[in-house]
Amino acid sequence: MGKSTFGNTFTVTTWGESHGKAIGAVIDGCPAGLPLLEEDLQKYLNRRKPGQSRFTTARKEDDLVEILSGVFEGRTTGTPISIIVHNTDQRSRDYGNIAASYRPGHADYTFDQKYGFRDYRGGGRSSARETIGRVAAGAIASRILGEIGIRFCTYCKSIGPVSIRNFNPDEINQNVLYMPDAQAAAEAASYLEECMSRQDSAGGVVECRITGVPAGLGDPVFGKLDAVLAQAVMSIGAVKAVEIGDGINVTAMNGSTDNDGFCNKNGQITKTSNHAGGIMGGISDGSEIILRASIKPTPSISQPQQTVSRDGEELSLEIHGRHDPIIVPRAVVVVESMCALTLVDALFSNMSARMDRVKDFYLKK
Amino acid sequence: MGKSTFGNTFTVTTWGESHGKAIGAVIDGCPAGLPLLEEDLQKYLNRRKPGQSRFTTARKEDDLVEILSGVFEGRTTGTPISIIVHNTDQRSRDYGNIAASYRPGHADYTFDQKYGFRDYRGGGRSSARETIGRVAAGAIASRILGEIGIRFCTYCKSIGPVSIRNFNPDEINQNVLYMPDAQAAAEAASYLEECMSRQDSAGGVVECRITGVPAGLGDPVFGKLDAVLAQAVMSIGAVKAVEIGDGINVTAMNGSTDNDGFCNKNGQITKTSNHAGGIMGGISDGSEIILRASIKPTPSISQPQQTVSRDGEELSLEIHGRHDPIIVPRAVVVVESMCALTLVDALFSNMSARMDRVKDFYLKK
Amino acid sequence: MGKSTFGNTFTVTTWGESHGKAIGAVIDGCPAGLPLLEEDLQKYLNRRKPGQSRFTTARKEDDLVEILSGVFEGRTTGTPISIIVHNTDQRSRDYGNIAASYRPGHADYTFDQKYGFRDYRGGGRSSARETIGRVAAGAIASRILGEIGIRFCTYCKSIGPVSIRNFNPDEINQNVLYMPDAQAAAEAASYLEECMSRQDSAGGVVECRITGVPAGLGDPVFGKLDAVLAQAVMSIGAVKAVEIGDGINVTAMNGSTDNDGFCNKNGQITKTSNHAGGIMGGISDGSEIILRASIKPTPSISQPQQTVSRDGEELSLEIHGRHDPIIVPRAVVVVESMCALTLVDALFSNMSARMDRVKDFYLKK
Amino acid sequence: MGKSTFGNTFTVTTWGESHGKAIGAVIDGCPAGLPLLEEDLQKYLNRRKPGQSRFTTARKEDDLVEILSGVFEGRTTGTPISIIVHNTDQRSRDYGNIAASYRPGHADYTFDQKYGFRDYRGGGRSSARETIGRVAAGAIASRILGEIGIRFCTYCKSIGPVSIRNFNPDEINQNVLYMPDAQAAAEAASYLEECMSRQDSAGGVVECRITGVPAGLGDPVFGKLDAVLAQAVMSIGAVKAVEIGDGINVTAMNGSTDNDGFCNKNGQITKTSNHAGGIMGGISDGSEIILRASIKPTPSISQPQQTVSRDGEELSLEIHGRHDPIIVPRAVVVVESMCALTLVDALFSNMSARMDRVKDFYLKK
Repeated sequence: MGKSTFGNTFTVTTWGESHGKAIGAVIDGCPAGLPLLEEDLQKYLNRRKPGQSRFTTARKEDDLVEILSGVFEGRTTGTPISIIVHNTDQRSRDYGNIAASYRPGHADYTFDQKYGFRDYRGGGRSSARETIGRVAAGAIASRILGEIGIRFCTYCKSIGPVSIRNFNPDEINQNVLYMPDAQAAAEAASYLEECMSRQDSAGGVVECRITGVPAGLGDPVFGKLDAVLAQAVMSIGAVKAVEIGDGINVTAMNGSTDNDGFCNKNGQITKTSNHAGGIMGGISDGSEIILRASIKPTPSISQPQQTVSRDGEELSLEIHGRHDPIIVPRAVVVVESMCALTLVDALFSNMSARMDRVKDFYLKK
Repeated sequence: MGKSTFGNTFTVTTWGESHGKAIGAVIDGCPAGLPLLEEDLQKYLNRRKPGQSRFTTARKEDDLVEILSGVFEGRTTGTPISIIVHNTDQRSRDYGNIAASYRPGHADYTFDQKYGFRDYRGGGRSSARETIGRVAAGAIASRILGEIGIRFCTYCKSIGPVSIRNFNPDEINQNVLYMPDAQAAAEAASYLEECMSRQDSAGGVVECRITGVPAGLGDPVFGKLDAVLAQAVMSIGAVKAVEIGDGINVTAMNGSTDNDGFCNKNGQITKTSNHAGGIMGGISDGSEIILRASIKPTPSISQPQQTVSRDGEELSLEIHGRHDPIIVPRAVVVVESMCALTLVDALFSNMSARMDRVKDFYLKK
Repeated sequence: MGKSTFGNTFTVTTWGESHGKAIGAVIDGCPAGLPLLEEDLQKYLNRRKPGQSRFTTARKEDDLVEILSGVFEGRTTGTPISIIVHNTDQRSRDYGNIAASYRPGHADYTFDQKYGFRDYRGGGRSSARETIGRVAAGAIASRILGEIGIRFCTYCKSIGPVSIRNFNPDEINQNVLYMPDAQAAAEAASYLEECMSRQDSAGGVVECRITGVPAGLGDPVFGKLDAVLAQAVMSIGAVKAVEIGDGINVTAMNGSTDNDGFCNKNGQITKTSNHAGGIMGGISDGSEIILRASIKPTPSISQPQQTVSRDGEELSLEIHGRHDPIIVPRAVVVVESMCALTLVDALFSNMSARMDRVKDFYLKK
Repeated sequence: MGKSTFGNTFTVTTWGESHGKAIGAVIDGCPAGLPLLEEDLQKYLNRRKPGQSRFTTARKEDDLVEILSGVFEGRTTGTPISIIVHNTDQRSRDYGNIAASYRPGHADYTFDQKYGFRDYRGGGRSSARETIGRVAAGAIASRILGEIGIRFCTYCKSIGPVSIRNFNPDEINQNVLYMPDAQAAAEAASYLEECMSRQDSAGGVVECRITGVPAGLGDPVFGKLDAVLAQAVMSIGAVKAVEIGDGINVTAMNGSTDNDGFCNKNGQITKTSNHAGGIMGGISDGSEIILRASIKPTPSISQPQQTVSRDGEELSLEIHGRHDPIIVPRAVVVVESMCALTLVDALFSNMSARMDRVKDFYLKK
């Protein structure tokens, strides 16, 4: 599989650098006949677009998406959907002073080690702008999932030391931090202001809850649904941990408290709890899927940092420019997109899991 | 990619159920000329073999491995290596009483939902015995990595509420819990005794440290080294969280404390710290790779649990039989194996990352 | 994808060498609930088994197949099916004299060039015995296809200069050359006798016709059904050409004679001819799929041949031993198996081609 | 693997329809540091561009290529190379009259069967314009291969009934039919004039010869170099047969005449003939690789043809518009491109075939 491609049956291939001409993606394996307009993608891209609040980079990008192929008369044709977003505000001069040295917390050093040189104008391929392609693809994936009743609820669970105490889904889009708790959002905002005053940055946790997932998605071994979700989400820059269900907390529990029992609820087999986060043995169990991503503080900070030049000369670096003091809120839609991509692939793969259903599919049509 | 296959260039395909005739794996893409004997694999398998201590299942399996292909006169030939381990102690009568109901914490329910029926004699494909193939493959991967100086140090970092306070690598193989801290190991043993007396089970954390990894392994986007490691490790049954470097702790840090600076150490560019856990932008940076897996308590416990039958009838289930009160110590070598498999694949994939090196390879030979 | 793995959703991974302990395959992605017994596989293996006629090697192998996993109570479970056939008549002494030199027409030289050394006891991995795994997998694939009405008719179309003039499907299994024309079979037998008397060997053409294939299988670009069939069939050792429909004859035709028109046959859209061989633009059109493989003469002949030793010393080589004067009849079931594997993969992949059918699948169940 | 993606390590993903906004491709896995300019790609695209002679469509497309990512300061960066060619002369009105019926020899019917509807403005995804992405990618692949001395010579071997009798490589680019025999080219031109006068079209054979290929490329089983080449070339629309080396002619030969002997030529092991076409057991043997593709006559002809409407109504169709009377000459560079893509992938995959070379690679750098 290409290194910039994700998925098996439903795939996305992203391309583009932060300071190149454009950023884009090719989505392949989308079923024919899905209603799809550029607006559907734009709505998702707007959720990650910069410049939306005082906590995001001032880089001005409209991030207008254009569909180049795969859609005809408002419906997908079953052929690859190519999307493009032009970079309009590269302003590469901002980065001129960092071309010759390695920014701490960035991929500058490892790119040079791997490839021998790099596009020194910015983050290049490891810029957060790469996620534009993921989000456009995620919007398509979400539309497919929506058709069979799968819904996402994704938000910031914590920012720095501030965690949510209440959960009000209607609040999520009411604050610029996408927190489902207005009080926590206000505290987090204060914390961020304080970080910014110290020329510092902050991290946090994104949580994604997915309802309506039919039981049976995912495969028992390497293609476990949670395993693929882990890859999907860990592949987002700055994510340093992925948890499913009770996550790291399971280690201090016992079998008797961690196991989810089963009961019969009006003729429907249901679990009595959901410590597992909706996945058992790598396969969805029909309850809510719950996943968390721990995201590190933005590495670009303007206080002096110790580093070296490409030639190995030690120096002190200050990164001025337009950087997010926190990327967690903008990562919300990226996490959701990666989960959506994973689920669509599992959804399609699962269609051939049972011979009786394969026969039905081909003999009844 | 086959659902039971892991890797792109260096692949392992596992097969077999807990109560079938045998368990095995096919390892493909192994370079020719690697010295390899059955003993090399057996050593790894012995680390996960049951019956080694009072904290593991009494099921008696010697888990003797046989190499069926791909090795000639003590060296790999470059063709697929097929390995097999016969199941000798299936004793399926142990499981008779659970055939008709869904064990909490297991994959019984999800298998039935996905496939319509299941091998009800035991865990089937989601049994921990499936990891035999992973460990045999991991032994081969480790041997390849060893040839270029990559070494593993893997251990239990915590069991239930007991975490290590000291780190003595020589201690790891001195206690049955594979903890690098004798004192903590003793405390953990007491904790486990207490769990067992309550007919309960416990979880814990496995940590894997990898040294000697050259900078440059991994790809910038979906094939990030940490992303593939996350999939690899999360695909082990019972793992509920994967962390890289400082993991979930990064969320409360600031850029100024989380960023690793660079310095020049006798002409060698080095990092001043390793919060990132050896991976920057998805690419290894030459420092130690650090990964943690959170593992849930063994779901099989003998105290009564609420569940339902296949027909939806509610009932109380007691699982008697031969089950590990904790699987974390036996998972140590499984986590190490999955990391080794991931690294070999990244090692081979990286060989074509630079045109000058491709030219060297083909024109200098 | 592993180099020894074929397919995307329904995959087969083969392993084993001609003179190793055993030969086998792992079939993954088989739907659950398919009735399957060892006899089902044995029937196919018997069609390629040596020693069936005076035109095949005298090597005595019963080629008894054993299923090691993935089948429970006579039905597939949805997990990998591992099959094994033990090598019982390796008699490696037959090959001792050829260990140090390169047999013309074989892969000895290229194996040494690629891997640095080889299993010199026989053909190793490039032996025709490798196809055992393909045929066992093909038997499973054919069983799946049979469930939805897809049937194969595969036979020798020509042997050396002798081509069939009549087509009587009932005749195919009445002669040891699997020709649908008794007269041609008799002539071909005479030709082979004559080749054998000259210590020489012969080639021929295998044709495969597949009926009942629903329209819509295959993808428009790189995954064209004919393209994947071409890879599948060309991957059989000794195949030097693959043709679809009218094949090489199309080059001398005109659009007006090569195009298949459409008509309405009792309300069913049908083609007026089938020059295309059942595939248009890479997608099955519902008519018979027709494919031909050109197979070279067996390279092992006992007359003296010019070659060199591993050290480059020129010498004359006579290959005595038990070799088929022709492999074409035994290749019939191998070609059929590779086509079956390709079709099953296309069948499953096609299930997510239309959004309305995906919705039906998940919302109506 | 995505259906529109080719390759494992070095991949190309194409997108775009004949009458959409643009056509493009994403090339991933290209090593860093390769000098690459848009001119390098344009040179290849010009070889397949329409309007070059009286034997190609009058559709006016400049097919100007733009590189959107992956190249910085004239060198590849190791990240995906996105290329785009805008469609400037869609003139969809040409196709209006064929929207409702199925053109014989085209994929209209199978697209409708697979996807439920189609972009009826033209060939859509199965248009020959799709090959633009392949050729741009092929240009990059050829540049990589050129760096290690691999060269292509590709030409029309026959057109309709006219085959070349002489082989003069310098002649290939001297005639619009890319034939290496001026006399045959003249005869073929007459034949084509005659076809055109009858409102008919013609087919032919493209042959590709590749020199400088190191021994050892390709894998022994499903990834045989000839098998992957067969898929690559058969995936080009209108190709109905692929032959390697002596191809279909081997079936009438004997082992004694088909086998290539070995000799020692000044200390170099060489073959005494090349019936195998440079590939033995699926692995390159260091001699010239020879491949042929049989290409059918252009299906679009303006004489009346029998067909049906989407509703199944029988009718007579005349396709007026701008269609090539033959596509074989324009397919020359497409066949070459697909072979180049295949070889680069095999080249990179082969780098990890031997443990000693892997050690050299990592320990000597």
